[in-house]
Amino acid sequence: MVLKGEGLAAAFTMDMLIPNTEIEFCACVHKVKKMGAFAFLILRTGRYLIQSVYEQGVCSGSLEGIYQGCYVKVKGMVKAEKRAMLGAEIRLADISLLSAPKEEYPLKVADKKLGCSLEINLQHRTVALRNPMERAVFQVAESVVTAFAQFMRSQNFTRIHTPKIVTAGAEGGANIFKLKYFGKDAYLAQSPQVYKQTCVAFFDRVFEIGAVYRAEKHNTPRHINEYIGLDYEMGYIDSMYDVMNLEVALMDYMLKYIADNYAYELDLLGATLPILGAVPSITFDKAIDIVTKGKGSKKTDLDPIDEESLSKYALKEYNSDFIFVTHYPGAKRPFYAMDDPKDAKIALSFDLICRGLEITTGGQRIHDYDSLVSKMLARGMHPDAFAPYLDIFKYGMPPHGGLGIGLERTVMKFLNLKNVRQASLFPRDLTHLEP
Amino acid sequence: MVLKGEGLAAAFTMDMLIPNTEIEFCACVHKVKKMGAFAFLILRTGRYLIQSVYEQGVCSGSLEGIYQGCYVKVKGMVKAEKRAMLGAEIRLADISLLSAPKEEYPLKVADKKLGCSLEINLQHRTVALRNPMERAVFQVAESVVTAFAQFMRSQNFTRIHTPKIVTAGAEGGANIFKLKYFGKDAYLAQSPQVYKQTCVAFFDRVFEIGAVYRAEKHNTPRHINEYIGLDYEMGYIDSMYDVMNLEVALMDYMLKYIADNYAYELDLLGATLPILGAVPSITFDKAIDIVTKGKGSKKTDLDPIDEESLSKYALKEYNSDFIFVTHYPGAKRPFYAMDDPKDAKIALSFDLICRGLEITTGGQRIHDYDSLVSKMLARGMHPDAFAPYLDIFKYGMPPHGGLGIGLERTVMKFLNLKNVRQASLFPRDLTHLEP
Repeated sequence: MVLKGEGLAAAFTMDMLIPNTEIEFCACVHKVKKMGAFAFLILRTGRYLIQSVYEQGVCSGSLEGIYQGCYVKVKGMVKAEKRAMLGAEIRLADISLLSAPKEEYPLKVADKKLGCSLEINLQHRTVALRNPMERAVFQVAESVVTAFAQFMRSQNFTRIHTPKIVTAGAEGGANIFKLKYFGKDAYLAQSPQVYKQTCVAFFDRVFEIGAVYRAEKHNTPRHINEYIGLDYEMGYIDSMYDVMNLEVALMDYMLKYIADNYAYELDLLGATLPILGAVPSITFDKAIDIVTKGKGSKKTDLDPIDEESLSKYALKEYNSDFIFVTHYPGAKRPFYAMDDPKDAKIALSFDLICRGLEITTGGQRIHDYDSLVSKMLARGMHPDAFAPYLDIFKYGMPPHGGLGIGLERTVMKFLNLKNVRQASLFPRDLTHLEP
Repeated sequence: MVLKGEGLAAAFTMDMLIPNTEIEFCACVHKVKKMGAFAFLILRTGRYLIQSVYEQGVCSGSLEGIYQGCYVKVKGMVKAEKRAMLGAEIRLADISLLSAPKEEYPLKVADKKLGCSLEINLQHRTVALRNPMERAVFQVAESVVTAFAQFMRSQNFTRIHTPKIVTAGAEGGANIFKLKYFGKDAYLAQSPQVYKQTCVAFFDRVFEIGAVYRAEKHNTPRHINEYIGLDYEMGYIDSMYDVMNLEVALMDYMLKYIADNYAYELDLLGATLPILGAVPSITFDKAIDIVTKGKGSKKTDLDPIDEESLSKYALKEYNSDFIFVTHYPGAKRPFYAMDDPKDAKIALSFDLICRGLEITTGGQRIHDYDSLVSKMLARGMHPDAFAPYLDIFKYGMPPHGGLGIGLERTVMKFLNLKNVRQASLFPRDLTHLEP
């Protein structure tokens, strides 16, 4: 190769931290404590905070012009030190400045917790994320995505990427963002539903990690308007329980993967992962019974307080932080949901609730062309408007089902965060379109 | 668990194909050849075609009502058979229908090549993708994405997900899709540029796999308007050559990963992966010299024919299907590109050309607040309009650089496809918004 580079950049990794060896890496100055001829510098690397000790005369570089927020290159000796984070510290032999900020952080980035309101945090999001607890959330988010992809591939699912600029909303309703596409009306996809079903026709099993857009005017701790959907769709199912069983195996894999690989972040966040246990599955009717304490009700959906009650029930009765609710009233589910052959008013669909919040919606889908057209007509939909979608059934589809998991909600519940915005790097909601 | 499912669905996997054992799986009837009391059924599973033999009296199920496009469940005995694909065939003991299409395929799905025009293919895309050669492209696309994620994680990059609904275009120009976001003007992101740079401030190294939107009115074999960007951005670089060296290592990893894991698809597609070799790197001026055969020119950019010429040069002189072009005229690169300290008219940026097509643009970025503001002013931009972006520099950024790889273009070139649309499941271009 005819390249003139000086080798890869020196980003810190844990395997470099061997006591009594020399180390050289780059980092951000997270905190400085000067004490005469000595100083403690907490260095922030991509994942860890590392304590370093500066001693005048020992370190050839100077601390002049080096302050919080500066990016530096350091050289030094690793020393075992029980009191330090990571059980070691760096005795600095050299330090040099790479770049200096123009202004002081507007937030207390070096405090354990930022200690500001969520609104201030979001206004200064590009600074807030420099706080190790804030960013740790996204290392866990990465682990959820990685575990999802690894697990799906281990189960012979093919990864797909489907368009987000579409001609119609699969989930119905008016909650859809509209745009002009070279003079035509187009929308941002409310889900990859149509496309992932299409791909089952030739890949048997598919998954997608992609953005989902909901123009809902909800301003709640559980709603954002652009989120990452972890979707899968599988052919040849016997029933929706195949889809649910696989999700339990997926959650088991994910939780173990996070516990095994992200203990540092969990500890930093003081988070305890949810207990999978023996995930119970109850029907919607039974759920209504539980939340109304058997008093009956005309409820056609579960509200956030109901979801909390069901999670308490699952934890008490089944020692699980998860609970499936199945057999929802069909009217509340999208047109593509398969009806229960025993009762056409009931959809063979389910939600998975984790710690009081729905994190998944899924179910078995209609795969027969005539049934789908009938159901669309019964709902006052115009099959002609969905001709390209209906084509996939006209030319054959196996029995199939699938689900969609909200990444940010999952991370929120895995880490017991109070607001889903905390689990989105740059959340989009009714009032936030920047940064 | 309180689930009633009958276990996971029977999707075929290669490890099930052991001669002289019983096998049971589900598949699509790809092709039927009836010959009296015998019939050959080619079964299409998620990845492979499998030959099966039906014999009246031996197979308990009937072939009545089973035709091309039906989804079936089969049982049988695996027999070694050299003449069959995969070196084995299934002697059917049972076959049952799961679902039947309503109409015949409008395309020749079971032919080796579809044999229709790209336009007909795209019109019937949901059927076209049922052709094994058509779908194989997306198994290779999956491998590119998987290899990208695996490699980046092995290099301590953190995976991020950034918003695609934004307030301004980072790449400049009018080529941007506009939408209304709760009464405000918003746009679809032309790249994750701003956000991936932001994340370098606290993660050191990041990567993203996400959609990119370009409202370009080009109708060429190399342009689509929604594509998947494989982006990375890394802190603490010495120069853009660090970014380029890493990309060469990435390409090496990717090409080996595909060769090792997707030989079946490469063979089916008759594709030969590009040769990495000793990837040359030439400056833009030298590139102009080569394409004009030393005659000089006032060209400020390379056109498709130039890119072809440069690839021929690289293959001849360096035995590589890849070539870097560096030091582009700054006026042709975005405002965030770092200028060459030796010549402010030159940007420290590069393209990677593979087999005659640019598949990557990258470079070193400005990390100093004042330099960035000066450059914006010099370009007639209003720094106030970019205040949230400028904040990341105000509060400090390390030296950094990165790149974006177009997934579909990469797959197109790895497989020597003629049109980038063939590498997009459901391409979006000037005239295609469906399916």
